[in-house]
Amino acid sequence: MSAANRRLVLVERPQAVPGAEHFARADEPVGAAEDGQFLVRNHFLSIDPAQRGWVSASSSYSEPVAIGAVMRSLAVGVVESSRNARYAVGDALYGWFGWQDYCVAGEQSVLARVLAKNGPLSAGLGLYGIPGLTAVLALSEIARPQAGETVMVSTAAGAVGSVAGQVARRTGCRVVGLTGSDDKAARCVADFGYHAALNYHSGLERERLRALCPQGIDVFFDNTAGEIADAVWPHMNLRGRVVQCGTASVGSWDPQPMAPRREREVLTKRLRHEGFIIFDHLARFQPVIEQLAAWSREGSLVFREDIEAGLDRAPAALAGLFRGENRGKKIIQLYDGANLL
Amino acid sequence: MSAANRRLVLVERPQAVPGAEHFARADEPVGAAEDGQFLVRNHFLSIDPAQRGWVSASSSYSEPVAIGAVMRSLAVGVVESSRNARYAVGDALYGWFGWQDYCVAGEQSVLARVLAKNGPLSAGLGLYGIPGLTAVLALSEIARPQAGETVMVSTAAGAVGSVAGQVARRTGCRVVGLTGSDDKAARCVADFGYHAALNYHSGLERERLRALCPQGIDVFFDNTAGEIADAVWPHMNLRGRVVQCGTASVGSWDPQPMAPRREREVLTKRLRHEGFIIFDHLARFQPVIEQLAAWSREGSLVFREDIEAGLDRAPAALAGLFRGENRGKKIIQLYDGANLL
Repeated sequence: MSAANRRLVLVERPQAVPGAEHFARADEPVGAAEDGQFLVRNHFLSIDPAQRGWVSASSSYSEPVAIGAVMRSLAVGVVESSRNARYAVGDALYGWFGWQDYCVAGEQSVLARVLAKNGPLSAGLGLYGIPGLTAVLALSEIARPQAGETVMVSTAAGAVGSVAGQVARRTGCRVVGLTGSDDKAARCVADFGYHAALNYHSGLERERLRALCPQGIDVFFDNTAGEIADAVWPHMNLRGRVVQCGTASVGSWDPQPMAPRREREVLTKRLRHEGFIIFDHLARFQPVIEQLAAWSREGSLVFREDIEAGLDRAPAALAGLFRGENRGKKIIQLYDGANLL
Repeated sequence: MSAANRRLVLVERPQAVPGAEHFARADEPVGAAEDGQFLVRNHFLSIDPAQRGWVSASSSYSEPVAIGAVMRSLAVGVVESSRNARYAVGDALYGWFGWQDYCVAGEQSVLARVLAKNGPLSAGLGLYGIPGLTAVLALSEIARPQAGETVMVSTAAGAVGSVAGQVARRTGCRVVGLTGSDDKAARCVADFGYHAALNYHSGLERERLRALCPQGIDVFFDNTAGEIADAVWPHMNLRGRVVQCGTASVGSWDPQPMAPRREREVLTKRLRHEGFIIFDHLARFQPVIEQLAAWSREGSLVFREDIEAGLDRAPAALAGLFRGENRGKKIIQLYDGANLL
């Protein structure tokens, strides 16, 4: 007799934003680890904007999730049995464990260890996971803000944006944010230390952005693309850097949408526009996690989590990201150490 | 009694490409150098695509030429009298001397010395001037091609492109070019060592470019922007670099034209799109000139000049650049050392 492994599989490829209709439950018995493998029990699933790309058939940076396969997801889980010398029963890991209760995993599935000294397990997929790591490494590897420069962050109150804003402010920058509601704009300033923030639904006319960024913009940390980006680009300063970390505001790339042609401003302002994918930077994770943990312990870095319970809530939580419904890093809890959720 | 200084001044700001109707002759007596200045007699004027930007009222990287002012131009001239200890009578200089026979210049007007050991004076504004320097420095400072990579050059047979192609080939790259006629495409291969070249008027369908670049494109040295660039971008490889050196194919930027939205390919392929303006790199000129001269002397670098005589030909020569009429670096000769031309 084996326990059940609840699983959510992809049943249909979404044209735009994935929703509940694209996934279905397909439970199976819990698998067993073979030599070199280990069995992980997921406690927390990470709900990420990038998951939209992973289920899209169009060109992306990874193979699309196959129809009928468990939805690809980062998760934090605990090793329940192991036939791998590096990972012992009880180890908490952050890795590619999917939308399911249990994952028979190998070493290649693990991104980082989640250490109890750094806080609750859920932090392993937020502050110390892809969002926190993306914020720090996209700034340090590509944008390289200098003290006195102005940094603009789109999705400023989100999991990535809120850390990017705080880290840029630590560097001595003026930090301004764009976000999707007046409430979030207020939290950008109150919670995350932005010098100013604007609800982009209230209008991004040139004069409004100029008032927000009177010295122009040196670094644009762009998680949205689309019309929000089109409003920001004209404010870029000479030798500005636009780091593309996401494209959350663009509903569909098929057919390819149109945008203002940017070659002339790239040329005359010597702008640099560069894409950033965190998985290119795995070797840098551990020291950055320790830096983030140190800031968090000393109370100088705030990170918000938005945790819901229950596997079946995952698809709607993902869809909600693209409507701006989350209040911090969106997380689905499956297990609290005693009870299945 | 003083000699006449023939001058061409800007009389009307062009909406698109500058032509004869935007300039007028406004001769004056030759000026006299004051303390710190020197009088240069222009032998060769440089006709450059960038001049379109210099007369445009819209945002560019330099102040627009004022109505009534001598047209801004690079030139090679010889010092005729001097009240500056650094520059002696007989020195040949490359600098901002304008569309005129004589210029009373100061040190800030000089970009480089033109040394007789490196070849004819005209080379000072082509191979050793902005075109050659742009080709070398845009590659070394931004594109950084590696042996085995594929480099695509637009305006492949032009003054900048022809040097870029040859320098990229020296690096061990596969070098492919786009140019505006079958004849120029043939010369790209025969004269400038391109592995392959295509007349973009013959069509840039995806299959044709794939056949030209079966391994995709790692570096796009873009002098055209516009629809030519739109056809090239989808062939960019992971971590490709697009260096924007010009926008020659776009007739007008007012209103800003539209283009396929590129954020997703920048993100998923981690592309880097960066603008390059040669005047940011003045301190690097002299060693690059010596490198280009060494290659030229050993016969391993070819540079074509297209020289016309007579100041009044300058506006039409500039307009002709945008119709692809030049056969190499376009130059206007004003003086042959004995005769006014």
